[in-house]
Amino acid sequence: MDKKKVAVLGASGYTGSDLLRFLLQHPNVGITYLTAEKHAGKKISEVFPHLKGLIDLELKSLKPKSIPKNIDVIFAALPHGTSAAVIKELYDRDVKIIDLGADFRISNKNYKKWYGQHPCPELIKKAVYGITELNRENIKEAKLVANPGCYPTSSILGIAPLVKNKLVDESSIIVDSKSGVSGAGRSPSLDYHFSEVNEGLKAYKVGEHRHIPEIEEALSNYSGLNVKVSFTPHLIPMDRGILSTIYVNLSKKLTTKKLIDIYKSHYKDEQFVRISSEKIYPSTKQVRGSNFCDIGVKVNSAGNRAVIVSVIDNLVKGASGQAVQNMNVMLGYDELTAINTSPVFP
Amino acid sequence: MDKKKVAVLGASGYTGSDLLRFLLQHPNVGITYLTAEKHAGKKISEVFPHLKGLIDLELKSLKPKSIPKNIDVIFAALPHGTSAAVIKELYDRDVKIIDLGADFRISNKNYKKWYGQHPCPELIKKAVYGITELNRENIKEAKLVANPGCYPTSSILGIAPLVKNKLVDESSIIVDSKSGVSGAGRSPSLDYHFSEVNEGLKAYKVGEHRHIPEIEEALSNYSGLNVKVSFTPHLIPMDRGILSTIYVNLSKKLTTKKLIDIYKSHYKDEQFVRISSEKIYPSTKQVRGSNFCDIGVKVNSAGNRAVIVSVIDNLVKGASGQAVQNMNVMLGYDELTAINTSPVFP
Amino acid sequence: MDKKKVAVLGASGYTGSDLLRFLLQHPNVGITYLTAEKHAGKKISEVFPHLKGLIDLELKSLKPKSIPKNIDVIFAALPHGTSAAVIKELYDRDVKIIDLGADFRISNKNYKKWYGQHPCPELIKKAVYGITELNRENIKEAKLVANPGCYPTSSILGIAPLVKNKLVDESSIIVDSKSGVSGAGRSPSLDYHFSEVNEGLKAYKVGEHRHIPEIEEALSNYSGLNVKVSFTPHLIPMDRGILSTIYVNLSKKLTTKKLIDIYKSHYKDEQFVRISSEKIYPSTKQVRGSNFCDIGVKVNSAGNRAVIVSVIDNLVKGASGQAVQNMNVMLGYDELTAINTSPVFP
Amino acid sequence: MDKKKVAVLGASGYTGSDLLRFLLQHPNVGITYLTAEKHAGKKISEVFPHLKGLIDLELKSLKPKSIPKNIDVIFAALPHGTSAAVIKELYDRDVKIIDLGADFRISNKNYKKWYGQHPCPELIKKAVYGITELNRENIKEAKLVANPGCYPTSSILGIAPLVKNKLVDESSIIVDSKSGVSGAGRSPSLDYHFSEVNEGLKAYKVGEHRHIPEIEEALSNYSGLNVKVSFTPHLIPMDRGILSTIYVNLSKKLTTKKLIDIYKSHYKDEQFVRISSEKIYPSTKQVRGSNFCDIGVKVNSAGNRAVIVSVIDNLVKGASGQAVQNMNVMLGYDELTAINTSPVFP
Repeated sequence: MDKKKVAVLGASGYTGSDLLRFLLQHPNVGITYLTAEKHAGKKISEVFPHLKGLIDLELKSLKPKSIPKNIDVIFAALPHGTSAAVIKELYDRDVKIIDLGADFRISNKNYKKWYGQHPCPELIKKAVYGITELNRENIKEAKLVANPGCYPTSSILGIAPLVKNKLVDESSIIVDSKSGVSGAGRSPSLDYHFSEVNEGLKAYKVGEHRHIPEIEEALSNYSGLNVKVSFTPHLIPMDRGILSTIYVNLSKKLTTKKLIDIYKSHYKDEQFVRISSEKIYPSTKQVRGSNFCDIGVKVNSAGNRAVIVSVIDNLVKGASGQAVQNMNVMLGYDELTAINTSPVFP
Repeated sequence: MDKKKVAVLGASGYTGSDLLRFLLQHPNVGITYLTAEKHAGKKISEVFPHLKGLIDLELKSLKPKSIPKNIDVIFAALPHGTSAAVIKELYDRDVKIIDLGADFRISNKNYKKWYGQHPCPELIKKAVYGITELNRENIKEAKLVANPGCYPTSSILGIAPLVKNKLVDESSIIVDSKSGVSGAGRSPSLDYHFSEVNEGLKAYKVGEHRHIPEIEEALSNYSGLNVKVSFTPHLIPMDRGILSTIYVNLSKKLTTKKLIDIYKSHYKDEQFVRISSEKIYPSTKQVRGSNFCDIGVKVNSAGNRAVIVSVIDNLVKGASGQAVQNMNVMLGYDELTAINTSPVFP
Repeated sequence: MDKKKVAVLGASGYTGSDLLRFLLQHPNVGITYLTAEKHAGKKISEVFPHLKGLIDLELKSLKPKSIPKNIDVIFAALPHGTSAAVIKELYDRDVKIIDLGADFRISNKNYKKWYGQHPCPELIKKAVYGITELNRENIKEAKLVANPGCYPTSSILGIAPLVKNKLVDESSIIVDSKSGVSGAGRSPSLDYHFSEVNEGLKAYKVGEHRHIPEIEEALSNYSGLNVKVSFTPHLIPMDRGILSTIYVNLSKKLTTKKLIDIYKSHYKDEQFVRISSEKIYPSTKQVRGSNFCDIGVKVNSAGNRAVIVSVIDNLVKGASGQAVQNMNVMLGYDELTAINTSPVFP
Repeated sequence: MDKKKVAVLGASGYTGSDLLRFLLQHPNVGITYLTAEKHAGKKISEVFPHLKGLIDLELKSLKPKSIPKNIDVIFAALPHGTSAAVIKELYDRDVKIIDLGADFRISNKNYKKWYGQHPCPELIKKAVYGITELNRENIKEAKLVANPGCYPTSSILGIAPLVKNKLVDESSIIVDSKSGVSGAGRSPSLDYHFSEVNEGLKAYKVGEHRHIPEIEEALSNYSGLNVKVSFTPHLIPMDRGILSTIYVNLSKKLTTKKLIDIYKSHYKDEQFVRISSEKIYPSTKQVRGSNFCDIGVKVNSAGNRAVIVSVIDNLVKGASGQAVQNMNVMLGYDELTAINTSPVFP
């Protein structure tokens, strides 16, 4: 069987690197085209020495017209705005597109408010939101998938069973998220300079992070409720991992045991979502390098409030792993192909 | 002038070590007696090589009767239960006692519920809760000070202006705390084994941590309200620092600017509490090694919810620094003596 | 085709965990038996939550007689002494054995000196030293392979081209090695307690580490020279990775370029050894989680001294990855099977 | 008594920050003038939030003529070349100058080779090399002190007793140094981007680091030997600390015990140099934040080779602490003033 030809646009960031890690293991695809503006002309292994001997393509400058016509799947790991502009030019080709940026995740109205003018608002409605576990049937038919953000993935998977089952006061949801530093990308700046970040911890963009509308829209669309979240992101001195601690007021009394059952039932057919036993809460370390989302829950003794702890690897289930999962669904492959690997522990 | 003679009971832990760091710089006191059960007979510099050349006392086994009568100040950094039992025997001496453990921080009723039978419940009422900024006048007169826990210090200083000014729905308070690993002490266990903790992040004792009653009692006593908190502690892969992200529903509409003014006014005479400007949130790194508590606040656009970010060094303002601050108040020294040092950055 | 049945003895350590990570990806083997003394009766996913959903075997107590007769391959990740005693009992079975411990790596004479009395010295000579790149032909025929230690792997692969080509004064070799903390195993102790190790760096067992005779014997056997090394190990605050900086006096004048050619030529058929270009030295981060050994070299301007920098992941090429590589060779599989995965970066 | 007026040129780097930490504790000096090109016009506490409430000076642009005439002591923490040009203009004033850069540490001949044309070669000979323990008498009389580099400080203090006592083959010295990341300064670049550095370890500038001539000149001048060193620096994922592992061939047979005695005797009057007992090697963590240099030594069983392990905090004994120590000597204060503080452990 012929392998599908894959292009990765924006291959020199951490998301690009982790995409290659998984795609290189995929028996049904071949990586044939890579772009990276700042490094055009170099080999990928010059930019990422860890890939030496595994892949040796030259990085191209990104010009939509130069992308070969025979490419079957395009992953776009580009800055917002750029991504939409490029995808606009490629959309009419016979190609599957998975956008790992923010351009097709939220409505045009919210995009305008949080990002500005959208280059091709008409395409937003054609895109399918790619949180695989909640939207699989639509992804199967999609030509363009908007791969979710890292914070939203951990938040949405953690909250979905509550809103779907109408168990929660949808205006009470607080998400306190903690992320490793790779989520900030590979561009040097004082904020991510080793000596500034290491051995410290801070909150940032309190109540103002662009992932807020994404979480709210995705959960509202999924549940029919009008979900609002208070969201605070934090930067943690580690490479990978997001832990979201979610606080909700329950709309009906529950016990921890009962809530665990609800979560297990909700995700019973999902290979990548694992629910912890009572009194056990997952560490980001137990999903490191893998596509798992692990969730632990706790209801207070009064039975009217719950805390949910949801962990992912921000670069995998929060980006590249989920992108490959979506590709598998779009192309009809076994959904686990290439991403059913063990976390790397320790 | 004669220096006051100081004893440290339980000197071989991290709290003990940091106490010595500050006491060695104090012009009015001399360290004359140290105990450490597991290391009795060794010199302190064998247990802590970093102290070599700075202090050379032998560690004693802890027997209250053997503690010299001429000791003026006793710091107890002992396990709960042990601490109360020892202090009971020493209480009638002419001595000032600062207990860094949990035994005298909460009411007997809560102690029984969260810890068990108290060795000397009659002393609980005589102890003064030692969060210096909120209780200075009582500390001046105290013979026995209950030095606050690390999580409570960051939480209480972060919430105090809200409850004192009756600005908050006292049942809505959520405290999401993140602590460096030194807070767990110096006893090896798998939970704090380097390769298990490093590069990971986890929640623990969700809704069940013993610092909950301490936070609730301290804030209720301070404000007259009946404060309840939802509290989730997390373990962060770094040595020192606590960051508490606090979520509250406001009982009256406010702006961020207005709330910052309220905090600045509340702490206007305090050297160790620093309030950040709008949109700036403190990092634990900016208080590392120091006695500062830095606080940033944010009100949502509707004006009815606030997020407070409060950071301390868990071993300093959360333990040893505050203990020395309390000693300074108890003995009538300048409160800043020996602890008015710059954070160690980076 | 039937899968080969594999047992892992001592599955609850970090080496065991990483073995399972690779074996789970191997198309030709099935994991059927696991032991772990301290955790006998538990499921492996209770001991390693990251493996939940991937493997669900119960851990057994280690009794050689209880190991099923139909096991085809045994990996032993046991304490030295224990390992030899167990292998002695299993040796006569129709089974391939890969010992990841120290018991069969060195001569009986050195074993006695560095470890003590050997339980079955007669088996030492039957064992084949398993540094695959240097000993492949013997490994193909081996029944019992002594998988190399982590420090020796990085050292030996870094020095082999020099001694094989007689380019070095074999008494001048200095190996300064730096290891991540996972090399110290999973048993808690103050030495590996997070707050003691993090943000610090130390040397230990200077000139007295048990890996010294292994390095010397392996290189002497490989080259015919009488190799002696000065060896200093260091503990680095990170999970994985070993970097060995090797200093040698050259026995003939060379340039850096020439020496790079010699290394490239020496390893030209090896997939897992990558030689860096001039002035580029590898980071442990570029091999993290993978079976690669990356090497950079530098000759001084006088042409008479060289520095070699050799990096591996201590748990992979330094333990589990090399063990699977050896199994592939022993069983006649493609040597790259299951271990030809990209490093996990960052 | 009037306090001496101090200026810090280049106050916005890590060296500047740590200088302020110590100077703020110094009873005999007052900080009155700070410069920082990139941040001119800002307050120092905007650039370093950790200093808020401790010092509130505005940062000035660096113009030698604008520096007030009444300044008594100038610390220059500037890029090489800039430093010499500025000091040239200030040299004729009645002022003591401590240069923390490289411009006055080595001979003009070596400067030309390793750095390029020197702006004022005539001043090089007037400068006194400021490794206090080895050069105290000259520092007392100096107007301009060249404060040593961080790698050289750990290396020189570790090797000095050997060369002074002619115990070593001076052509055999190998220095394998490992440094925390703060040594690379505060300017963001990919090399020091958190996600690139964390959890990894690398060598750099092998045999080509500019600290080589400084180590060789300082030790040659001190001993009269013609010292040559092989030097390899490494980058360690931690904020602070340098550990140098030094390998030498001895010119006369020794035991470890004997060598420890030689080191103890050599440094017997030094407060900041501590010699470890046999089989104990210092960790950088035990000197963190302090001015100590801790040294452990080991002689091989043949008695003809030694390994010396020397640790410092690169920002303190390797920069700011030593600068204050030199100032104390130059101004006739107690040498320990302001820097006799406990390491911050953990």
